[in-house]
Amino acid sequence: MTNFEVERKFLVATEWLVPAGAPSSHLRQAYLSPLGSGNEIRVRAKGDARLMTVKAPDEDGNPLVRREVEFPIADEVFEQLWALAGEDRLSKRRWTVPLGDVTAVVDVYEGELAGLRVVEVEFDGVDTARAFEPPTWFGEELTGDPAWSNRELAVRSEGRRLRSD
Amino acid sequence: MTNFEVERKFLVATEWLVPAGAPSSHLRQAYLSPLGSGNEIRVRAKGDARLMTVKAPDEDGNPLVRREVEFPIADEVFEQLWALAGEDRLSKRRWTVPLGDVTAVVDVYEGELAGLRVVEVEFDGVDTARAFEPPTWFGEELTGDPAWSNRELAVRSEGRRLRSD
Repeated sequence: MTNFEVERKFLVATEWLVPAGAPSSHLRQAYLSPLGSGNEIRVRAKGDARLMTVKAPDEDGNPLVRREVEFPIADEVFEQLWALAGEDRLSKRRWTVPLGDVTAVVDVYEGELAGLRVVEVEFDGVDTARAFEPPTWFGEELTGDPAWSNRELAVRSEGRRLRSD
Repeated sequence: MTNFEVERKFLVATEWLVPAGAPSSHLRQAYLSPLGSGNEIRVRAKGDARLMTVKAPDEDGNPLVRREVEFPIADEVFEQLWALAGEDRLSKRRWTVPLGDVTAVVDVYEGELAGLRVVEVEFDGVDTARAFEPPTWFGEELTGDPAWSNRELAVRSEGRRLRSD
């Protein structure tokens, strides 16, 4: 099913600690599409799962919304695509933290991005997203800022300069 | 397996007719990656098969060679990705024609590209490709000319102007 992904994204305030018992998974992902144009196409290893994801910009240009198709791929296909993806890769540990009616997903980046912590909350609609009041451990909001997309971070994670579009 | 695709491409001379008994299949394909940069990522329906293909430029810049990964996807995933791909699509019938040691693949385009016929021959290496002498029914060579890539043709098939890079 094509998902319409509605989410907001924030930095994590430095004093926040991962709650005891919050489940986590390790992610590494690489980008097959070029930076800054059209669909974003990536492969992701999440624990033992191997996935491909295509995200398209919202047709109405709403930065809160993207259309997303995600599907499993064979381990062998993943390895081949990973090799084609070039250097735009990143890895992180993802923590899932319940937050009232919604779930916060905290990504703790690794490698050259170590120290960066980002929290995302997904909503069932644009109205709910707008009404959401971030708790105090949420820092600066990054929603819709292309400089903080994972696609951009994958470039920065390689120690290359942040390209501007 | 990642294939290294080594091929040459020509127009078909107008007098040529499809040989009786040559097998054919119907193809339609749509592009998920933007025109003219990086990896070329498409979905293709070939008869009942549904495939995704990622083609990367040769690391040494040889226009004869591309690295290619192709893998089957579920019908449902194909339909979702087709919807995300936008307007850069094309359809054609593909004829397979034996040609001595190699096989010629003739694509007869449909829709707005009707009248266009292109023949491709795939080789087991760059030396064989260079030594190949095209038969008389091969017209102008198009190898390595981006204006004649299927990616470009998918743009032209929609009646849009050919974008230049």
